[in-house]
Amino acid sequence: MGGRTARAGGDTRTRIVDATAALLRRQGYEGTGVKQIARDAGATLGSVYHFFPEGKEQLAAEALRRDSEHYTELLRDGLRSSDDPAEAVAACAHLLADRLKESDWLDGCLVAATALEKVGRSPVIQRTWEESLAAWQEQIAAKLRTCGMPARTAEEAACTVLSALEGAEVLSRISSDDASLRTAAVYLGRLIVALRSDG
Amino acid sequence: MGGRTARAGGDTRTRIVDATAALLRRQGYEGTGVKQIARDAGATLGSVYHFFPEGKEQLAAEALRRDSEHYTELLRDGLRSSDDPAEAVAACAHLLADRLKESDWLDGCLVAATALEKVGRSPVIQRTWEESLAAWQEQIAAKLRTCGMPARTAEEAACTVLSALEGAEVLSRISSDDASLRTAAVYLGRLIVALRSDG
Repeated sequence: MGGRTARAGGDTRTRIVDATAALLRRQGYEGTGVKQIARDAGATLGSVYHFFPEGKEQLAAEALRRDSEHYTELLRDGLRSSDDPAEAVAACAHLLADRLKESDWLDGCLVAATALEKVGRSPVIQRTWEESLAAWQEQIAAKLRTCGMPARTAEEAACTVLSALEGAEVLSRISSDDASLRTAAVYLGRLIVALRSDG
Repeated sequence: MGGRTARAGGDTRTRIVDATAALLRRQGYEGTGVKQIARDAGATLGSVYHFFPEGKEQLAAEALRRDSEHYTELLRDGLRSSDDPAEAVAACAHLLADRLKESDWLDGCLVAATALEKVGRSPVIQRTWEESLAAWQEQIAAKLRTCGMPARTAEEAACTVLSALEGAEVLSRISSDDASLRTAAVYLGRLIVALRSDG
């Protein structure tokens, strides 16, 4: 395929995935149809099925993978921002709060919301969730191990950090107020400090 | 109204609220209609509007208030189970894990899920959420103050405990595995211990 066609195809594909993510965010998995995705992306139905022959589930999985990568990048930025793991974890919560506020409280964790909606009913989406969660947990655990935290403690603490970030994001979205995430930043930081000094 | 009529009315009302909660849980607010609520409750549409003249929003708010009271009771049981606030907070996470597991991973926090679905679009549901959150936070904060924790620290720590419990519950539901809640029990307990010794 020539460069130009590939680029145009790439653009259409990106528009389709963007439209899918936007619709999932606004109206959930069940409320979203492939026709509406095509219309919102300015693409034909044939073009949508050309890129995503398996239809809505494949479209959603791709949108979730992209959303998941944004989280991975955000965590990477937060975790790299300080050598001190407590400060680094707090930075992740602040970055999530910044992102959520900038999006006018809309830009929550799409992969968690969709996986929750489809619990037990879509192995593809379930797998996307499990891969995302494992990646995020390992990112945080790796940072905690850099200060000599035992591997198991680091893994479990990372799990609780992720729970608190997910929950604080939900609370912040519902209240249109970033206080829950800002507070989580402080107290997750204090938890990490305590775990370090416990050895 | 005679005793018998009142009881029958009370039963019908309860069935209607139960049916509303079950449908909201299974298919969300947007996916649930008043006709379906009536059918599932074995009640006439007229009877539903007799008890809930304002329709779906009022029905949902009542179902959420009941769900919220179940959480309040669960937190009360957990917090009363030990004089030590760290153990008491851990007990709340374990009780949530028990309840979720018994419900086959279905019985999540309905008020948070519905409030999230209706963000910015239903003052009635928003208010139900805010009242619930304030009540739960004050329950936990009151327990933390019993060991002499300063009021502001207690309030903020309670906020982070709630974030972590909400998030761990979501993670547990998606994974059909209570590990996130059991882990949160341990690490939230450690956080409270650390905050106490920090003074």
